[in-house]
Amino acid sequence: MIVPITLDCSATLCYDIMIDTLPKLTFDTKVAIITNPTVAAYHLDALLLRVGAKRVEVIEVPDGESYKTLRTVESVLDQLFERQFDRKSLLIAFGGGVIGDMTGFAAALYQRGIDFIQIPTTLLSQVDASVGGKTGVNNRYGKNLIGAFHQPRAVYIDPAFLRTLPRREFAAGVAEMIKMAVMFDATYFDFLESADLDDTYTLKEAIRRSVELKAEVVSQDEREAGIRAVLNYGHTFAHVIENETQYTTYLHGEAVAIGMVMANALAVRLGLLSVSEAQRVVDLLVRYALPVTYLINDANDFYTHFFLDKKSANDKIKFILPQGIGNYQVRDDLDASVVMSVLMQFGDD
Amino acid sequence: MIVPITLDCSATLCYDIMIDTLPKLTFDTKVAIITNPTVAAYHLDALLLRVGAKRVEVIEVPDGESYKTLRTVESVLDQLFERQFDRKSLLIAFGGGVIGDMTGFAAALYQRGIDFIQIPTTLLSQVDASVGGKTGVNNRYGKNLIGAFHQPRAVYIDPAFLRTLPRREFAAGVAEMIKMAVMFDATYFDFLESADLDDTYTLKEAIRRSVELKAEVVSQDEREAGIRAVLNYGHTFAHVIENETQYTTYLHGEAVAIGMVMANALAVRLGLLSVSEAQRVVDLLVRYALPVTYLINDANDFYTHFFLDKKSANDKIKFILPQGIGNYQVRDDLDASVVMSVLMQFGDD
Repeated sequence: MIVPITLDCSATLCYDIMIDTLPKLTFDTKVAIITNPTVAAYHLDALLLRVGAKRVEVIEVPDGESYKTLRTVESVLDQLFERQFDRKSLLIAFGGGVIGDMTGFAAALYQRGIDFIQIPTTLLSQVDASVGGKTGVNNRYGKNLIGAFHQPRAVYIDPAFLRTLPRREFAAGVAEMIKMAVMFDATYFDFLESADLDDTYTLKEAIRRSVELKAEVVSQDEREAGIRAVLNYGHTFAHVIENETQYTTYLHGEAVAIGMVMANALAVRLGLLSVSEAQRVVDLLVRYALPVTYLINDANDFYTHFFLDKKSANDKIKFILPQGIGNYQVRDDLDASVVMSVLMQFGDD
Repeated sequence: MIVPITLDCSATLCYDIMIDTLPKLTFDTKVAIITNPTVAAYHLDALLLRVGAKRVEVIEVPDGESYKTLRTVESVLDQLFERQFDRKSLLIAFGGGVIGDMTGFAAALYQRGIDFIQIPTTLLSQVDASVGGKTGVNNRYGKNLIGAFHQPRAVYIDPAFLRTLPRREFAAGVAEMIKMAVMFDATYFDFLESADLDDTYTLKEAIRRSVELKAEVVSQDEREAGIRAVLNYGHTFAHVIENETQYTTYLHGEAVAIGMVMANALAVRLGLLSVSEAQRVVDLLVRYALPVTYLINDANDFYTHFFLDKKSANDKIKFILPQGIGNYQVRDDLDASVVMSVLMQFGDD
């Protein structure tokens, strides 16, 4: 029997995360499944067999990060209004992180907030995006810059959906698992080093530990005042990389993989991480064919781009760095010259 | 000395509402004043003299309810990104309800939420819109259908701004005061019947009582699960009227005035309100030249339009009705035929 992870109900963070075969879901309200054509083609029929409701609508949005815009969310809202959804209606996010973020955002905005549940179908969204209540969209200034905090009513994580996931996207999910391990749990890192994630039981355990760690962090800090910022390990760099490459070259998890390598280089420079520990992280990333290098053409430009990242309040950049494997340090006191010297390691020569 | 109204800090509703001459405001962050050309022409210079900050930007949006759209909010967000506002930056809503709702909404969405303060410059927004944390925009399906709950950090109500307010807009604000009195406070209703609101001291007292009542309601019920719905007295009808007239014929408070008369007719029909009590409300509205009639061309159409209103969950319409003056009843059990018969009283013959 699989016991659901129940979040601490002290705040608004009060819902179950189930890691198991998707159960039958019954609602006494109108329900809209928000998905994309790719996920729908593989899995929509199976989902429809499991969802019972007063009425079930399916709203498809185009597949891909480039459609994660206010415009797409507005079109979802329009379709909900057309169908006269009300305040008790429910949305189901059925897809990866893009679908989850936009569905959660639409739910946050529709008539000032309706319920939604998450059924993530990618490894990345199963271990990361589906837990924590961050919702939102990108704009031309960057990623997730417009959004809201809106917690799902429940999260159903069924690894069966991963069977149709391209290998590259699977690896991008593993990158987030590695992130959690490096920041919080050396034992989990050891486990990942020796794990065969093609084995379903092992995969479930790996997902479970990642979700547990994330749920713990988020329960402590819903609004990212403190420890939640640690989840951004690798992301400060990744956001700039994704921005520079117009979100077309790398999957999010791939950019995070590179971002972790960059953060680790900074940690090594500061004496927080040994060269061999940094190498262990690279080796694990490489095992999943994740990218670990990126050519920074203009370190100055790259550095400037940090400042649009939303983690930088009052013109200070906050770097999340590993302190050995399994621990972290948050640093906002680094000289530009130190950061620049590390960025230059990723330069042309 | 004027004591600020401090909201109950149990939940997220924890801020001061000052009713007095605007004090000097000093911030150690970037600040953007969101306003419109009309308010700016009259009062911006005075405001700028009182606001000190790391940097003060002014963002003007077009004046009027028809610009209360997602598009306008997006353009405000774009301008904040252009100016590299961060998570610690602050917005100041400087204008009426439209400015307040859009500024609050922009603050809710910018990097998933930044602080804002309200400096309302119309009577309506001083007594109503500036307190309660409802933010949002209209779309082609209706009013305030897209939005978020986001509480201001503080509200500064300075009646001096009302000196330049057109008489008709002043009256629209009085309509909301009358609404609060009819629902919650017979003594306040008596006071309004005899008050001379051209007298500044009396006006301050009138504003104060309305704000106190609203703050009390909102503190009890931030998310409109219960008593907060009572604030929608007159609004269920008003929203349909505003929608039918494309928001061009009536100011919001004027539509609410008509809406109260309609709700009262329903209350009289149900024996909740006497004819003479209903007449007292009409007389008070008329004293401020507020409209009290509206020609319903098609009662069926009018009735159908209730269903898009966000207060109707699961296809039930909730009517907020006075029970005498100073008390209320919330009814969602009314036969369509009863409501229709009252709507038909507002018909052609």
